[in-house]
Amino acid sequence: MKNKTSTKEFKLSKNERLLYESPSIFKPKKFPNIFPNGFKIYTFNAGFKKKLNDLLIIIFDSPVNTASVFSKTSTPSAPIIWNKKNNQKKIKILVVNSGNANAHTGKKGLKIIDHYVNYLLRVYKCKKNQVLVCSTGVIGELFNPLLIINKIKEIQNKKNTSLLDAAKTIITTDTYPKISIRNQIFDKQNVKIYGIAKGSGMIHPNMGTMLAYIFIEAALPFNIIKKIINHNLDDTFNSITVDSDTSTSDTLSIFSLNMYKINYKTKKNFEKLNSSIKSIMKDLSIQIIKDGEGLSKLLDIEVLKAKSKRQARKIGLSVANSPLVKTAIFGEDANWGRIIMAVGKSDEKIIQDKIKIYFGPHLLCSNGSINRRLNQRVLKKYMKKNIIKIKINLGIGNFSHNVYGNDLSYKYININADYRS
Amino acid sequence: MKNKTSTKEFKLSKNERLLYESPSIFKPKKFPNIFPNGFKIYTFNAGFKKKLNDLLIIIFDSPVNTASVFSKTSTPSAPIIWNKKNNQKKIKILVVNSGNANAHTGKKGLKIIDHYVNYLLRVYKCKKNQVLVCSTGVIGELFNPLLIINKIKEIQNKKNTSLLDAAKTIITTDTYPKISIRNQIFDKQNVKIYGIAKGSGMIHPNMGTMLAYIFIEAALPFNIIKKIINHNLDDTFNSITVDSDTSTSDTLSIFSLNMYKINYKTKKNFEKLNSSIKSIMKDLSIQIIKDGEGLSKLLDIEVLKAKSKRQARKIGLSVANSPLVKTAIFGEDANWGRIIMAVGKSDEKIIQDKIKIYFGPHLLCSNGSINRRLNQRVLKKYMKKNIIKIKINLGIGNFSHNVYGNDLSYKYININADYRS
Repeated sequence: MKNKTSTKEFKLSKNERLLYESPSIFKPKKFPNIFPNGFKIYTFNAGFKKKLNDLLIIIFDSPVNTASVFSKTSTPSAPIIWNKKNNQKKIKILVVNSGNANAHTGKKGLKIIDHYVNYLLRVYKCKKNQVLVCSTGVIGELFNPLLIINKIKEIQNKKNTSLLDAAKTIITTDTYPKISIRNQIFDKQNVKIYGIAKGSGMIHPNMGTMLAYIFIEAALPFNIIKKIINHNLDDTFNSITVDSDTSTSDTLSIFSLNMYKINYKTKKNFEKLNSSIKSIMKDLSIQIIKDGEGLSKLLDIEVLKAKSKRQARKIGLSVANSPLVKTAIFGEDANWGRIIMAVGKSDEKIIQDKIKIYFGPHLLCSNGSINRRLNQRVLKKYMKKNIIKIKINLGIGNFSHNVYGNDLSYKYININADYRS
Repeated sequence: MKNKTSTKEFKLSKNERLLYESPSIFKPKKFPNIFPNGFKIYTFNAGFKKKLNDLLIIIFDSPVNTASVFSKTSTPSAPIIWNKKNNQKKIKILVVNSGNANAHTGKKGLKIIDHYVNYLLRVYKCKKNQVLVCSTGVIGELFNPLLIINKIKEIQNKKNTSLLDAAKTIITTDTYPKISIRNQIFDKQNVKIYGIAKGSGMIHPNMGTMLAYIFIEAALPFNIIKKIINHNLDDTFNSITVDSDTSTSDTLSIFSLNMYKINYKTKKNFEKLNSSIKSIMKDLSIQIIKDGEGLSKLLDIEVLKAKSKRQARKIGLSVANSPLVKTAIFGEDANWGRIIMAVGKSDEKIIQDKIKIYFGPHLLCSNGSINRRLNQRVLKKYMKKNIIKIKINLGIGNFSHNVYGNDLSYKYININADYRS
């Protein structure tokens, strides 16, 4: 396939610098790490990025039950179109490249995938619907499939690597890798559950520019994995927003590694299973929001006493996405008037005079007007914190929901005004 | 009414400085001006702002037919609640203050209005539903109605002023006043139509933080004015967006001054009437977007060959509101991939491979992928322009719609991170 762009147009050196020179204030000091059983991880610099690794290939010892959800965008990337068409439920190989999203690349984009997947099929003797492909990065640029094929050729002579390396390989504008590990006992068996994710900008419900892969050592059928995803998606990845923009590439997959048989049908075990996978999903989604492009503060917004969970979530997202709320938080201004504005623009039926707004423990308004007794000096001090908790009590029902976002800073603009140049 | 805040908390000096020191690149060199017939204009510094005028009172020679539309927010300001309750169709007095929005001020906010309106009623012998009130500025702060009452007392000894002075008085973060004047001949009578508006941030369909007042010298009944507003709102004020935030205070009113009788029932005259009022509405809405907070570029987005006008508008707004599109334009990057992303997140059914995207005359993508023959040097030069025209041809229908927005700059954050402090 002739392709003039190849690697030259992906000058990601600025992002590569960002990663080291200007990380998120929430960057963890230490990262957990494991060499997982049940599959082998290979990472490469295939030429999508300048120096950093940009190609992850995971080869499972044998095909594993897998359920995935994809971006709801109506302009999906080629990998999402390809995956949906092939409807994978058992995966032998996962291929992820970062630096080029293979999005809006039309039939050529699909051919690129066929090209490197066909090569994989010949080498690993598996079926097309046993390969899951993902791409993240710049939209609209073709790439030469040989970039990937050449690395597939190197696998045989290469040492497999760690989960942390995998997490590092899939990032784009992230300033740190996202990794999360849990242990859970089922019927005296110690089962590991762990996941990696990437995402920093273009994050919004319907899953943003986000990739997340979760692995569980227990054997689970497709429909149970799918059920657990559906249970927890709204409370985790669908409740975070960096910039209200929806990516063309988002994918979440959960792989069941077949290492332990557990009785997932008992209520107790299912609860454990559900809560430990949810815990990983929540952890990874919070890690993503803590690395939101250019953030200086994390916004933890709780909408409570709403008429429905849907209403609470819609109002929470309206607040978390408001540029005026986000810039006020950046300016350390407890501008609750803008919260009221954002509640109002959500189009939800509320009773204005019943709304109570808190910043942390501090009540800012109730009964339709400002709380005059509030100590402004104490509030000012609160606004200097890295995590700002906003509580919006609607006083009209019994449902609540948490949404996570961040502030809008000069750095967000700096990052996005010349991502490509 | 006891009120500790009074004027001290409104430190608008920074905005007052902005107005003079750092105006929009689109600020006109000259402003039209008239001393209108049919009503008298009075402007004051009532103490909401530091030095600039902040109170506009218009007294019509006799009550005039008036139709208004208000913000669709579910957290409306006290003036909007008050106006809707009183359902004014004939106006004798218009009172507008800037610097304090009287929004989310509960029953106290409504009492403030009753207070100064009752004073007006006693002086001018008119009815409550003949007074229209508007407030724009900071949300959630009460003010002392004496600020307004004291100025009402001064009217008798004061000289009336010009339309341009009225436009200057109602602005908040605007960097220039908005004024528009037309002449139209109806049956050999020369009829003047003119309007003023304010708005700069918190601008979004459902009319943003926007106030607009249009006056027509011809006598028109309420239902005709209302019809003309409804005809043209979607194409004008409801197609501009600065930051996707919806204000609590938006108001558009059209006043018919009763000076000329025209036959609005003939098709020809109605068309003339409709198009000249639309022309003022369009002009004022474009002036608002050209003064969008912190803008460095105007975005003129045309969505064409859509399945419906609603679809074209929804997709246009999705693009105009995308922070990633806006920051790319700020960075002079023709990042059409982000346009595709924003089309995708609109949730509209489209055919991805049929989309054509143009920046000015330059085709960036078609048939589902990039246009490789595009001269990048020429495109780069185009992106330096102040007005960027983006054409999105969906290729699936016959409807089109224009949406106006602007880029997202460091200055937007600077303005909004400390509007109050």
